Amino acid sequence: MKEPLYKALAAELRREIRSGRLRPGDKLPSKRALAEEKKLSLMTVTGALELLEAEGCIRTEERRGYFVADAVKPMLLPDPPPEPERGAESGCLYDFKSSHTAVEGFPFYTWAKLMRETLSEKDDRLLAAIDPKGVYELRAEIAKQLGLMRGIVCEPRQVVVGAGTEYLIGLIYQLLGKSGYAFESPGYTKAAKIYSRLGASLSFIPTDSEGIRADVISDTPSIDAVQVTPSHSFPLGTVTSLERRRELISWVSGREGRFIIEDDFDSEFRYSGPSFPSLYSLDHSGRVIYMNTFTRTLAPSMRIGYMILPPELVSLFEREFMIYSSTVPALEQYVLARFIADGAFERHLSRMRRIYRRRRDVLIEELSSFGEEIEILGVEAGVHLLVRLCGGQSEREVVELARSKGILLSGISEYMPSGADPGLFGDAIVVNFAGVCEEDIRRAGELLRSEKIL
Amino acid sequence: MKEPLYKALAAELRREIRSGRLRPGDKLPSKRALAEEKKLSLMTVTGALELLEAEGCIRTEERRGYFVADAVKPMLLPDPPPEPERGAESGCLYDFKSSHTAVEGFPFYTWAKLMRETLSEKDDRLLAAIDPKGVYELRAEIAKQLGLMRGIVCEPRQVVVGAGTEYLIGLIYQLLGKSGYAFESPGYTKAAKIYSRLGASLSFIPTDSEGIRADVISDTPSIDAVQVTPSHSFPLGTVTSLERRRELISWVSGREGRFIIEDDFDSEFRYSGPSFPSLYSLDHSGRVIYMNTFTRTLAPSMRIGYMILPPELVSLFEREFMIYSSTVPALEQYVLARFIADGAFERHLSRMRRIYRRRRDVLIEELSSFGEEIEILGVEAGVHLLVRLCGGQSEREVVELARSKGILLSGISEYMPSGADPGLFGDAIVVNFAGVCEEDIRRAGELLRSEKIL
Repeated sequence: MKEPLYKALAAELRREIRSGRLRPGDKLPSKRALAEEKKLSLMTVTGALELLEAEGCIRTEERRGYFVADAVKPMLLPDPPPEPERGAESGCLYDFKSSHTAVEGFPFYTWAKLMRETLSEKDDRLLAAIDPKGVYELRAEIAKQLGLMRGIVCEPRQVVVGAGTEYLIGLIYQLLGKSGYAFESPGYTKAAKIYSRLGASLSFIPTDSEGIRADVISDTPSIDAVQVTPSHSFPLGTVTSLERRRELISWVSGREGRFIIEDDFDSEFRYSGPSFPSLYSLDHSGRVIYMNTFTRTLAPSMRIGYMILPPELVSLFEREFMIYSSTVPALEQYVLARFIADGAFERHLSRMRRIYRRRRDVLIEELSSFGEEIEILGVEAGVHLLVRLCGGQSEREVVELARSKGILLSGISEYMPSGADPGLFGDAIVVNFAGVCEEDIRRAGELLRSEKIL
Repeated sequence: MKEPLYKALAAELRREIRSGRLRPGDKLPSKRALAEEKKLSLMTVTGALELLEAEGCIRTEERRGYFVADAVKPMLLPDPPPEPERGAESGCLYDFKSSHTAVEGFPFYTWAKLMRETLSEKDDRLLAAIDPKGVYELRAEIAKQLGLMRGIVCEPRQVVVGAGTEYLIGLIYQLLGKSGYAFESPGYTKAAKIYSRLGASLSFIPTDSEGIRADVISDTPSIDAVQVTPSHSFPLGTVTSLERRRELISWVSGREGRFIIEDDFDSEFRYSGPSFPSLYSLDHSGRVIYMNTFTRTLAPSMRIGYMILPPELVSLFEREFMIYSSTVPALEQYVLARFIADGAFERHLSRMRRIYRRRRDVLIEELSSFGEEIEILGVEAGVHLLVRLCGGQSEREVVELARSKGILLSGISEYMPSGADPGLFGDAIVVNFAGVCEEDIRRAGELLRSEKIL
């Protein structure tokens, strides 16, 4: 809407006042002066001033003119917080901290081609409201994929697509209406943060070499729901054992109203070791929500996640949650559905698996030169591994020395609730290699040796 | 990952069992039989059966073979709920109920062109992680627009882009950490539902011809935050008076920690009457969050909303909320930024305003033929209006008679908390005309007359 001139002028004056350039009590230029300065009619200027007066932004004084009202406080923004240190910005050469993905591996042109095709074909369907669960074609492809790759039996009707894991967590919290949530410690702290912001009370459960301690969960009656990453935990990189998975299932089916949220993090990047059935497929009580995202397999900017709801929650969702609109644009959903159907997704996955496996192998080779000083864990899957410090250095020393030499690492303690005991892991370094090419991994390894960082 | 054959077979059998086609206690075919039937080696079949046994899905009996485990319960989905009645589906001719938009007005080819251009130019930036607040270019355009159209002074840094109002409500709830939220009654019930699912306690505040009753808010100490739609309320269509806006501002600045969430619903579609300054621009205490969406102005499938945070919340967001990922894909954000910058958005808005104004005028003309029987309210803005029934009919009678004749209407009571008193409005019909073309509005009017529905 083209706003009339007097409003444009009012907005301009308001900006002067809000920004603090005009302060409470300051006198405004006379109407005539304003009219001349702005090349506007007296009427326009009067209109603007009357509007501001009506807003209580300025006051008029008999025969003295207009003044900025005393009530007016300029709204000044606080100083921006210090930038979170990132590879590039902090003049750091090798970033093993930020969770990058190897974007160069993304088949951008295939994707763009599918987008152009979809754009030229779908027209109105791209504009019409979407099923709150997501576009059917995409949910059908997801269900099919899960059957092939994860042995998960589900129907498109059970699939809910959403703008990333963080959004889905919000939905899950509303669906379960539970208060007591448990998480792996150390673990993916972000998820826990989100639940607690939503009002959940958190328990952090220690993990051992088989995964989260199911016995501790059973001993904690306040726990209603447990979120776990059985395929590959972060930061430990543990693959939950079959035995432990069974214990978790018997916990969840042991009492009404318990739930497990299975975040199948990193299941796509398995290099070695057994692939155990997902908790979802082990569960017969219908109390496991399966959750995964395309963000890590496609690109960070693709906020497309999904969850598989067990029957009970499907009907709850269909009764109560159909008021929500799908948070992922129709275009992305149709394109991703095609991307999967054409087999492009599977081809992309195996390409990424090759890239990451090579980076992992080079990293292990570099680290192995440190012999007894360290122990390397969590190498079976994913894009990060854990380096236990057995040489008596503290992770803090290592992280800081490394940073001073241009290598960004993080300590395992960053992923523990404050005050939690490090358990059997002691001091350890998390090495996130997804975003660092082989050459840089070698150079970083050289630096670690020459500078005696490890 | 191409799963090995034995896994594919295991998945197939699992499906049989989960779907209930194979029931607990059923005997499975012998290995040999399976091998022949599926054209697989005995080893593959054995692998599959051992996996299923490990999962506890089947059990083996000495010399008798494999049986479906008794623990196994097939996970059967509940019957789908009855479809919510919709125009098309219920054989209804004229849908004045669903909140459609006039999709035909969307400049799809301009949009698609911008998308193709952005796709071909931006490459990597489309894949890289986005600022949690959204793409800067878009936030800058939004801030500029708000200055021009709504006299709102804000910086891109205050703008947070998110996948629709519903998602932003979740963020607001976490940002404010308040418990007592108040809403207009009657009003946009969906928002209230979402807050209450998140754990908020709700108050429903009666509204009068000037807007929400600020005096009632002041008399309710439990209220921490009020969400209002001052530009055009739904369903009443009230434009909040300047006086009432001032009362709301003095309430919010009257005590620490109070907030107003200004949902600037329908501000883009104003046909007549004064355009009052937004609450955000009237507020000097930094306690108003301004919120709006492009969903209604562009298309239902475009889940792009935004909010303007006051300084205090900007710093909170920058301290605590930067862990969230932007929920809107980079592509959509870059394209929308261009769409606004090129002036295409403003051209689109005035086209839509013309379309909706014509529909509104035709509707009013049709309704005016009912003279004293009805009173028409809320015509100054938006894409719906309110018809008060003065002829003694109940809204229920009218809605049901109309539906039986193929006209979908809704009664005002649907937008009130159960048990709330209808206030000064009595029985009234909400007429949502966004999705009905002029000809159909005339035909519907004819029908209303000939069938004596009003």
